[in-house]
Amino acid sequence: MRTRHRRPLSFLILLVATALVASDAPDPVLRGFTPARSRAQRALEEKFLAVPDPAQAEAHHKTLTAEPHVAGSPADRRTAEYVLEQFRSYGLEAEIEEFYVLLSEPREIKLELLEPVRWSGPRPEYVQADPASDDRRTLMGFNGYSASGDATAEVVYAHHGLPADYQRLREEGVSAEGKIVIARYGGSFRGVKAKVAEENQAAALIIYSDPEDDGYHGGDTYPDGPWRPASSVQRGSVLYIFHYPGDPTTPDGPSVAGAPRIAPADATNMTGLPVLPLSYADARIILENLSGPVAPREWQGGLPFAYHLGPGPAKVRLRVRMDHAIKPVWNVVAKIRGAERPDEIIVLGNHRDAWTYGGVDPNSGTTAMLEMARGLGVLLRTGWRPRRSLWLCSWDAEEQGLIGSTEWTEKHAAELQQKAVAYLNLDSAVAGDRFGASAVPSLKEFLREVAADVADPKGGSVLERANQRLRERLQRGVVPGRAPSGGTEPKPIAARRIDIGNLGSGSDYTAFLDHLGIPATNFGFGGDYGVYHSIFDNHRWMKEFGDPEFLYHVAAARYYGLQALRLAQADLLPFDYQAYGQEIQKYVKGIRNKLVLLSQTNELDFAPVEKAARRLADTGKDLREKYEWALAQGLQPPHLDRVNHALVEAEQAFLLPEGLPGRPWFRHAIFAPGTYTGYASVPLPGVHESIDAEDFDQARHQLEALTAAINRAADTLESAERQVQ
Amino acid sequence: MRTRHRRPLSFLILLVATALVASDAPDPVLRGFTPARSRAQRALEEKFLAVPDPAQAEAHHKTLTAEPHVAGSPADRRTAEYVLEQFRSYGLEAEIEEFYVLLSEPREIKLELLEPVRWSGPRPEYVQADPASDDRRTLMGFNGYSASGDATAEVVYAHHGLPADYQRLREEGVSAEGKIVIARYGGSFRGVKAKVAEENQAAALIIYSDPEDDGYHGGDTYPDGPWRPASSVQRGSVLYIFHYPGDPTTPDGPSVAGAPRIAPADATNMTGLPVLPLSYADARIILENLSGPVAPREWQGGLPFAYHLGPGPAKVRLRVRMDHAIKPVWNVVAKIRGAERPDEIIVLGNHRDAWTYGGVDPNSGTTAMLEMARGLGVLLRTGWRPRRSLWLCSWDAEEQGLIGSTEWTEKHAAELQQKAVAYLNLDSAVAGDRFGASAVPSLKEFLREVAADVADPKGGSVLERANQRLRERLQRGVVPGRAPSGGTEPKPIAARRIDIGNLGSGSDYTAFLDHLGIPATNFGFGGDYGVYHSIFDNHRWMKEFGDPEFLYHVAAARYYGLQALRLAQADLLPFDYQAYGQEIQKYVKGIRNKLVLLSQTNELDFAPVEKAARRLADTGKDLREKYEWALAQGLQPPHLDRVNHALVEAEQAFLLPEGLPGRPWFRHAIFAPGTYTGYASVPLPGVHESIDAEDFDQARHQLEALTAAINRAADTLESAERQVQ
Repeated sequence: MRTRHRRPLSFLILLVATALVASDAPDPVLRGFTPARSRAQRALEEKFLAVPDPAQAEAHHKTLTAEPHVAGSPADRRTAEYVLEQFRSYGLEAEIEEFYVLLSEPREIKLELLEPVRWSGPRPEYVQADPASDDRRTLMGFNGYSASGDATAEVVYAHHGLPADYQRLREEGVSAEGKIVIARYGGSFRGVKAKVAEENQAAALIIYSDPEDDGYHGGDTYPDGPWRPASSVQRGSVLYIFHYPGDPTTPDGPSVAGAPRIAPADATNMTGLPVLPLSYADARIILENLSGPVAPREWQGGLPFAYHLGPGPAKVRLRVRMDHAIKPVWNVVAKIRGAERPDEIIVLGNHRDAWTYGGVDPNSGTTAMLEMARGLGVLLRTGWRPRRSLWLCSWDAEEQGLIGSTEWTEKHAAELQQKAVAYLNLDSAVAGDRFGASAVPSLKEFLREVAADVADPKGGSVLERANQRLRERLQRGVVPGRAPSGGTEPKPIAARRIDIGNLGSGSDYTAFLDHLGIPATNFGFGGDYGVYHSIFDNHRWMKEFGDPEFLYHVAAARYYGLQALRLAQADLLPFDYQAYGQEIQKYVKGIRNKLVLLSQTNELDFAPVEKAARRLADTGKDLREKYEWALAQGLQPPHLDRVNHALVEAEQAFLLPEGLPGRPWFRHAIFAPGTYTGYASVPLPGVHESIDAEDFDQARHQLEALTAAINRAADTLESAERQVQ
Repeated sequence: MRTRHRRPLSFLILLVATALVASDAPDPVLRGFTPARSRAQRALEEKFLAVPDPAQAEAHHKTLTAEPHVAGSPADRRTAEYVLEQFRSYGLEAEIEEFYVLLSEPREIKLELLEPVRWSGPRPEYVQADPASDDRRTLMGFNGYSASGDATAEVVYAHHGLPADYQRLREEGVSAEGKIVIARYGGSFRGVKAKVAEENQAAALIIYSDPEDDGYHGGDTYPDGPWRPASSVQRGSVLYIFHYPGDPTTPDGPSVAGAPRIAPADATNMTGLPVLPLSYADARIILENLSGPVAPREWQGGLPFAYHLGPGPAKVRLRVRMDHAIKPVWNVVAKIRGAERPDEIIVLGNHRDAWTYGGVDPNSGTTAMLEMARGLGVLLRTGWRPRRSLWLCSWDAEEQGLIGSTEWTEKHAAELQQKAVAYLNLDSAVAGDRFGASAVPSLKEFLREVAADVADPKGGSVLERANQRLRERLQRGVVPGRAPSGGTEPKPIAARRIDIGNLGSGSDYTAFLDHLGIPATNFGFGGDYGVYHSIFDNHRWMKEFGDPEFLYHVAAARYYGLQALRLAQADLLPFDYQAYGQEIQKYVKGIRNKLVLLSQTNELDFAPVEKAARRLADTGKDLREKYEWALAQGLQPPHLDRVNHALVEAEQAFLLPEGLPGRPWFRHAIFAPGTYTGYASVPLPGVHESIDAEDFDQARHQLEALTAAINRAADTLESAERQVQ
């Protein structure tokens, strides 16, 4: 039935699509808009794009980063009030929404090397040129939600501290049991390292910043360059956010006043180990005093000696005393009511709290959000109203464990699942000039299209520059005399386009996508950023290295706003389920390949899931092509509302009624942060992690649940389409 | 015509081959032998394998490495006499064959840092624990065939010093013209670095050992571990051996007494620049004093600071005074006359000269060769004679530029091209326990088969352990949560087998394969070997780290001997031209892929070369399958001699009458060391390098010459086969 009309249409649109793909230039007529609306939208966008301003951005940034403002502190409250004022001054309706959540602060931290030499630390972060070094208001280097404890033991070096690392230690005859493990940052979210150290019965965990990763191996260190200096410490939470994020004491609901709570001791997302982050100046003193087997080559870091595994002779006493208490935190929420479809909401969010000053993380994002909001305000003052509603959220306590956004989404879950069209996240907006983005597969092409319409401060569009950078990198990989493998058909480098990544975790899209099934995006301009979560992540660093002219803050504001305006105004929402279905097919193929690689014989039947993914891709293509074609003709196709609703609902159809094995808060069948990655996305997590655990019964069950979820999404699209015919 | 009988045969043999491939275990019946001969061969091999002995190996090694024995020195002469005596004591006929060649030794070397601080070097290699540190007989750190010169200039850091690196420097606004370039070892043969520095008009070149490559980044440094200590220097020749190896003054003929010579100044394989190797202790002083742009991340090394490109402020004066003089060098050649086919010769060769003591390079190989020769001697004393002839060669002056072997092959070119069946090279036989090998494609499977029949000192066969190591490495690369790309069909890791590499250059097979078209092999047991070409490459290092029990020297002797015995005794020579043809197809595909990647439009027609390669593979398969099948049945197939001859001649058919563009000494159409790799093999070099140079006219011409060469090889096999039918 469907195919009767499809062929000629597909063919036409395929031609258009091919033409688009072949070029980095934007299409003159916006996809999903009628020609008339597209013209109006272009005019609107032009007005919007003219607003964000580097001087204003710099002023916001300076104010927001004027003092350390960890979540729940008076300084944090002051930033909330600043954002509130700004929103209101742009003509937006805005309120502060308070939550009461378990926060974690250090009271006392002491590290002593007892053997083979005595030394006492940790030493403070310090570089002479930056007054931040003398600011008594910053919290010392610590890991949020570390357990309090006092451990004395020999030290073992465990590389990234992941399961394969402990496996390798065992192969080398080294046990971490009862030992103080020192692991380097990288390879996973730090909370995973704490969990795996606990699983391996370590007595405590030290996590240090290796100079190979964000220190001098990247280039000059602060204040001479943007990289981490020897004394600098990466703070950060070790909450098991891959188990569930948000307030540990309210796993199932919002942390409003009077909410039912569990005792912190009963929370399953908190570590039982004392955990301490360390600078490489301090870590060196421990690592240099390890003997035992030489570390494998890929475990060696940037310190100038051969790393050893231990245990000992380095023997360490680590004392950590933490204060965990319920305190208020403050989200700021501004709402612009849609003129035509007020109950279709585009939610935008950026966190505001910082471990120290938040120079990059997150107040480059807050700055961009404010300039974006100011741009919307300018449009509103002309009498314009968006067709759909726009909500702008300034989250609190993201650093502790995505708490502000998680509690808020838990509070508003029903309304969001009914009304939210998409969630657009912005965390660290600017650390340099290198654009990167992630999204659900249905929005990846949309993000590229928006990037084609935002000017890059260094010339061309953001998309053109990002593609160009990719192509230069690939070009450099082509070595004279060396031919690429004869195995696969390559694609010309000149035609390669940047990849839009998958959403894992580590920022505020998590609850929206993984818990509620709301399509989400994330983006930022990355750079040589070595001062992450240190006292040097401040305004001075940004002025010296990150974005001295604040031009990329302006670009970020524009990019953020353009995403919002397109989604708010489009006739047809730009969700591409053909791409989604195709990516799922790719993930399935990847899992099948892994099973072949490992010769894991099993009776898993992948045919149904592959069929479901093809069905989703076919249905998605069919629906989108027809509607895009009709709109491009200036037609008003029937049931457009219903189709738009279906496009939104299809994402929620991916939610698993039972959630993922062992972590039911995570409900999305296609994406979750990995249990052993923490940040990085694991596609088809239920199936993938069951196979990794060699639990094939569970894998079979998860495969069925996944197949059902994909079929539900396809059903959702098909039922909308049936109306049409 | 050919296909009439082929199908059923192929099918049968395919089954057998598949069964073989699926297992690491040796085949009970040797390929290319009748069952009866195979049994006799197995018995012979058993006798041979019992001979090599660790205590004897250690004694050889101790004697050979007792003093520094650079080519042409009295100590070198003493090693020649030792080898001669040993050969003779085993009952072999052996002689010293003298050549007169241009050798290169340092007279005075001085390095001064003039700006921004004063420092004078280079400092000597030294570790307290090793008496080698105080041995006045070793030559100071120098690069053989450096020009003499006195240069004063600012310094520029150029990473590996390859063309792409200078391109990158230009992109960063840094010119090397008139500057002293400091480059790190790695990425190419060091002579390439000299040539490229010269092309970029540098004033001089310093090449240093970065600790990331063979220093502490690998593990503990000598004397605590096997890696390069801070003071240690990698000596080595910078002769342009990729242009032509051997004595620079006799580019076209052997350096016998009274040979016609060109003046060194007219030699096209010598650099015009002063070149000096440096330790990382010394290099650090220069690198730390560079400013200018920060080096790209992949250029950063293991020293604990951010590398900069310069130029300056480091300003250096480098004085190098060299002595280049014609001196005698001594190859030792032992000959065992074949009983049945004396005019079919298996040539084995290992060089004997060393930059210092030759602990690994090359006297681990000399040790293995002597123990192998002793094994042959034991067989000979039982009255056995090989069916084919065996020649054992101990080369001199390899380190200077493959001189001993090159001059010898040039002298005996006609006889070798007529009689040599194969050349089996052995250079550094043992630096650890990790087997690796290279060969022409026709002998790759043969090398695996031999490896399946030699016991690894750590258990299993050499092949099993090597495969196991590969599989463990691949297994480690499979990360939980991460699925391999969905793009290609993977192969189970458990079924993966070690790759046998391609022969590039840097050892004595070069003249045999690249100049004369004689099929060649090379192998060794690699390891954590950081003291290459330093004074610490000595007996002490070997006893401490490389092979304390000399068990791998014994394994190398066995492996070397088994190669020789199989080739000497086989009814059918084990050359597999199906594999050769298939590899050529893969190389062509690789080049085509590269053209696609780079969107290089051209009118190159690859169809003829692909057809020729397919034809070679088909003919090779056909011929081999028939003969192997017949022999396996115990039949004596007709024209076996002629077929064997064709199998040898097919390799010579690959020689290009005109040689490669710009370097006619290199005549092989399929393999050559890359002009910009120096050591590493570039497949289809004429075509590949023409394309890299974007000279498509030349590429077309080379493609035709390549196609003709492959067709000649196929003709050779076909004409033998025609006789058969």
